[in-house]
Amino acid sequence: MPAASATETVDFITRVRDSFARQGAMQTLGARLVRVEPGLVDICLDWAPGLTQQHGFLHAGMVSTALDSACGYAGLTQMPADAAVLTIEFKINLLAPAKGQRFRMEGRVIKPGRTITVTEGRAYAVDEGREKLIATMGCTLMCVQNRDGLNN
Amino acid sequence: MPAASATETVDFITRVRDSFARQGAMQTLGARLVRVEPGLVDICLDWAPGLTQQHGFLHAGMVSTALDSACGYAGLTQMPADAAVLTIEFKINLLAPAKGQRFRMEGRVIKPGRTITVTEGRAYAVDEGREKLIATMGCTLMCVQNRDGLNN
Amino acid sequence: MPAASATETVDFITRVRDSFARQGAMQTLGARLVRVEPGLVDICLDWAPGLTQQHGFLHAGMVSTALDSACGYAGLTQMPADAAVLTIEFKINLLAPAKGQRFRMEGRVIKPGRTITVTEGRAYAVDEGREKLIATMGCTLMCVQNRDGLNN
Amino acid sequence: MPAASATETVDFITRVRDSFARQGAMQTLGARLVRVEPGLVDICLDWAPGLTQQHGFLHAGMVSTALDSACGYAGLTQMPADAAVLTIEFKINLLAPAKGQRFRMEGRVIKPGRTITVTEGRAYAVDEGREKLIATMGCTLMCVQNRDGLNN
Repeated sequence: MPAASATETVDFITRVRDSFARQGAMQTLGARLVRVEPGLVDICLDWAPGLTQQHGFLHAGMVSTALDSACGYAGLTQMPADAAVLTIEFKINLLAPAKGQRFRMEGRVIKPGRTITVTEGRAYAVDEGREKLIATMGCTLMCVQNRDGLNN
Repeated sequence: MPAASATETVDFITRVRDSFARQGAMQTLGARLVRVEPGLVDICLDWAPGLTQQHGFLHAGMVSTALDSACGYAGLTQMPADAAVLTIEFKINLLAPAKGQRFRMEGRVIKPGRTITVTEGRAYAVDEGREKLIATMGCTLMCVQNRDGLNN
Repeated sequence: MPAASATETVDFITRVRDSFARQGAMQTLGARLVRVEPGLVDICLDWAPGLTQQHGFLHAGMVSTALDSACGYAGLTQMPADAAVLTIEFKINLLAPAKGQRFRMEGRVIKPGRTITVTEGRAYAVDEGREKLIATMGCTLMCVQNRDGLNN
Repeated sequence: MPAASATETVDFITRVRDSFARQGAMQTLGARLVRVEPGLVDICLDWAPGLTQQHGFLHAGMVSTALDSACGYAGLTQMPADAAVLTIEFKINLLAPAKGQRFRMEGRVIKPGRTITVTEGRAYAVDEGREKLIATMGCTLMCVQNRDGLNN
């Protein structure tokens, strides 16, 4: 495969940023895109009272919301410019209470494909500079082209 | 097994309602507890711009946030009064875009246990009174007793 | 959709039976196809020492082998005659030790699709005529057409 | 944590080997334990006609049988000497057809725990010395002590 040109590189970063900005859920989470590379996206967010479960930790669903976006956009970086990405399914294991001031979610492509892309995610709680693995995700994506009403 | 007394019935409903009210995430979702019975909880919420993915549908993570709470509280209805419930893992399959005015999430206990409880969830989009299945979840819970800082 | 003709009905049953007969793994399990209907397949097998884990119960992987075939063939019943079915992923919850003389695995289509079909499976242990639910599966299938070396 | 004594090291290896030898399913697969270290187990097996799906590849269920044992025994290496290990659930993603002469399955502990241990598995097809990743697993284990009829 030939190396991506500078234009193409700009393109996938722009596409991910634009799509991320249209996700109302990411604004609700106060989530920021902190890294976008081919097959790799990192998202950060801060603890907030509107994201908690009953013990004051981050709700497992909110952890999975950020991980799902990280995995989905990691997949989108390697899809054609006119493709939309849909999540088929994901599974999350909660390893420890999501307790911390800040959280970092990693999405990584394990196996890209024309139709199906498989990704993995890891969530870390960050407390006073120390990172702790709190969740792992396996997430399967579908690349959709030429479907009405779906763009990236 | 003897029938639950009126007091016990009130107790598990009160415990679920109180815990639900402490989840900041449920307020962010505008989620309402609409049914609480032994092994069974339903949650409803309305579409809102702060809950969306890039195409304007409900974000898969927000669907899973409501389903995870429905499954977790379905499990809590059958746990001892002093127990806390933690999600070990869940898997969600997205069957159709989460497109609708309103959503109903069902959590059901499949297999209660002293330590591990297995539950299933189903999410429906409600549009002009018609319900459409949009997601299924399998969710494993742990019953935790006597752990510092964790109550129901 | 018009009703399937008698010829088409025979066709999907024949395709499932022929494909099942080519699975060496089903012979190793001593598995029998006991029900084949649109979107629905049941498989039975007997306990055997070559299928066990360390406590003498059916190995979780052997339970999932039979469930995966039941789910895959349930999906195949609703795919075009020239399609092959591939498993993208599955998740299994083991609810109780797989202890019994005989086992029955159900595969059911939850959501058929042109590319992606979502199915659910349930495994039962049968002991002296009494059935006990021992495992649940969620399984995602892909319908593949015109790919070299893959037929049903 | 103090270093394990030579006796303890021998103990966990012996316990894993003895338990593996009691799994009839591992003999059916022709599976060999090729690596046993704290939190880490590798299993190898050869292609055989009795392990196949309809296209002659290794059946997804047989891949998951070997991966489940690799993950379970990786967990057992870090459990108390009198504990038994049970699989609560696992999820497998099939990334490519399981096509090869030989297969290697890795089980790794991600998060050990007193009750719940979370592991990950990876399966590789080996063809003419070249390894290809064909499947990933996430597997949750329970450590069981003092339960009738269950030893390691």
